[in-house]
Amino acid sequence: MDLVNLDDIRRAAAAIDGLALRTPLLSATWTEALWLKPENLQPVGAFKIRGAGYAVSRLGRTEGVITHSSGNHGRALGHVARVRGIGCVVVVPAEAPAVKVAAMRDTGAELVVVPGALREETALELARDRKLTLVPPYDHPDVIAGQGTVGLEILQDLDGVDTVLVPVGGGGLASGVGAAVKALSPSTRIVGVEPELAADAAEGLRTGVRASWPVADRYRTIADGVRVELSDLTFAHISAYVDDIVTVTEAEIRDAVGLLARRARLVAEPSGALTVAAHRRHGAGFGKTVAVISGGNIEPALLSELVRD
Amino acid sequence: MDLVNLDDIRRAAAAIDGLALRTPLLSATWTEALWLKPENLQPVGAFKIRGAGYAVSRLGRTEGVITHSSGNHGRALGHVARVRGIGCVVVVPAEAPAVKVAAMRDTGAELVVVPGALREETALELARDRKLTLVPPYDHPDVIAGQGTVGLEILQDLDGVDTVLVPVGGGGLASGVGAAVKALSPSTRIVGVEPELAADAAEGLRTGVRASWPVADRYRTIADGVRVELSDLTFAHISAYVDDIVTVTEAEIRDAVGLLARRARLVAEPSGALTVAAHRRHGAGFGKTVAVISGGNIEPALLSELVRD
Repeated sequence: MDLVNLDDIRRAAAAIDGLALRTPLLSATWTEALWLKPENLQPVGAFKIRGAGYAVSRLGRTEGVITHSSGNHGRALGHVARVRGIGCVVVVPAEAPAVKVAAMRDTGAELVVVPGALREETALELARDRKLTLVPPYDHPDVIAGQGTVGLEILQDLDGVDTVLVPVGGGGLASGVGAAVKALSPSTRIVGVEPELAADAAEGLRTGVRASWPVADRYRTIADGVRVELSDLTFAHISAYVDDIVTVTEAEIRDAVGLLARRARLVAEPSGALTVAAHRRHGAGFGKTVAVISGGNIEPALLSELVRD
Repeated sequence: MDLVNLDDIRRAAAAIDGLALRTPLLSATWTEALWLKPENLQPVGAFKIRGAGYAVSRLGRTEGVITHSSGNHGRALGHVARVRGIGCVVVVPAEAPAVKVAAMRDTGAELVVVPGALREETALELARDRKLTLVPPYDHPDVIAGQGTVGLEILQDLDGVDTVLVPVGGGGLASGVGAAVKALSPSTRIVGVEPELAADAAEGLRTGVRASWPVADRYRTIADGVRVELSDLTFAHISAYVDDIVTVTEAEIRDAVGLLARRARLVAEPSGALTVAAHRRHGAGFGKTVAVISGGNIEPALLSELVRD
């Protein structure tokens, strides 16, 4: 299987310049040797604008685009499609957070709500019937290359990075960041982070065989952005580039959301706070570390609950 | 009276490179033609690191520094003093928010708590008695020059800015940003923002005579960072460079804190949200606008209350 390489990621960086925000690295205030890459500050509130932006930039003439998403990728694709003046359909699992569904609708995308287990097949059917181009949330080389621009920027901004922490859901971000960072700095460790309640990628990396957990199990975690599972393509990248995947508890995720708001002035969603939770639990040997804060689209009521001391 | 000029501000920018964060401009998602300058992301949670950093960089040999501050300047000076390896004393008004007092203490600064009305004279006395160098929060050309680097960066990052919105408390930020922006782009309007409950600078700009409001009046606003009043030096800058000062209500300030958390993924303190409140109320004629989000050090309980829809 062909993996995404550094040239792909550099082309993606050029293509999304001006569309995605060049996020700065923020020095964490509560500990030493930790920097945050705040992708929650992207125009759509998540890194997903990078992959969606690059994938759409590569399309030829199309009737429009379609995807399936619980929120951030759908919002990103809707945003990019509007900027490029093409139509967009998003197949949304019924379990998606209301705040994310509203944000997707605000982009002007057409939403089709289905049970979570049917999202992929519904998107495939609609793509065929309506002649739309499928831009999947992670299972696509262009999407992975776009997410990899996060890794390029980290190494441009900070020397001697020992560890990069990335959340793992479908694996697009970990795949792209891994490809970028290992090409430029092979000694930097790439450590993925999953909730204990959705640790299918950790299991797969340990056993060498892609693991599949029942949807009902994966949907237990509060971290709604990482309830999906790896594809063959992202599993291949993660097997090649990710050194380890660590897990965190639900309580640790909730604490990390509060910590980021109080100490970094950043609103992160639970999936976006996974890496900070991992640094607090496992960080002793990580050395000079960058934690990717992948997104910030959280229900206001949950944020209100978690920011209290 | 000599005003701070563009050369001063450029020297300040060079001096604080690597100490202060080069904050990006973020496109607002809830309205058109509005960008945010998120100074809440600075290592100390506020723009104050710029002025304190430049002022300390200009000091010769000293026994240490001292200031009076309700929070953000004191925290910035404490941070800079620690980085430079010198001592720091902060005279703190008893009314200062607990979260800011704790953050000042965390820098290693020595705190001296006094009633708000006594802050300035206590700082002067201690400076004399203990041979410390006073670095005032705004009434100093180097501090103003440091804050002016915010204005330089705005014009570097965005063309054709019609309006820059800045909060006005002691006036250091408005003075510096005004000096920078008017030198480089005379047609850009500088609009200050105050709470209705502490609108002494608006009154002074209107009448042409610096206004002084009783401390008890100014301390009514939730925006604790702008309860202080202008000095002669900042009044002179504001008279020269600020086109208008608009006011907002307490309810509008509270709403803007919630909006920033929900829609920009930024934790702002009430003073930091003043400019967004002003854009919502007065923005119709502002054109292409940059709102400076001056800081993000807010009590967790208040943040929790304000982020709910």
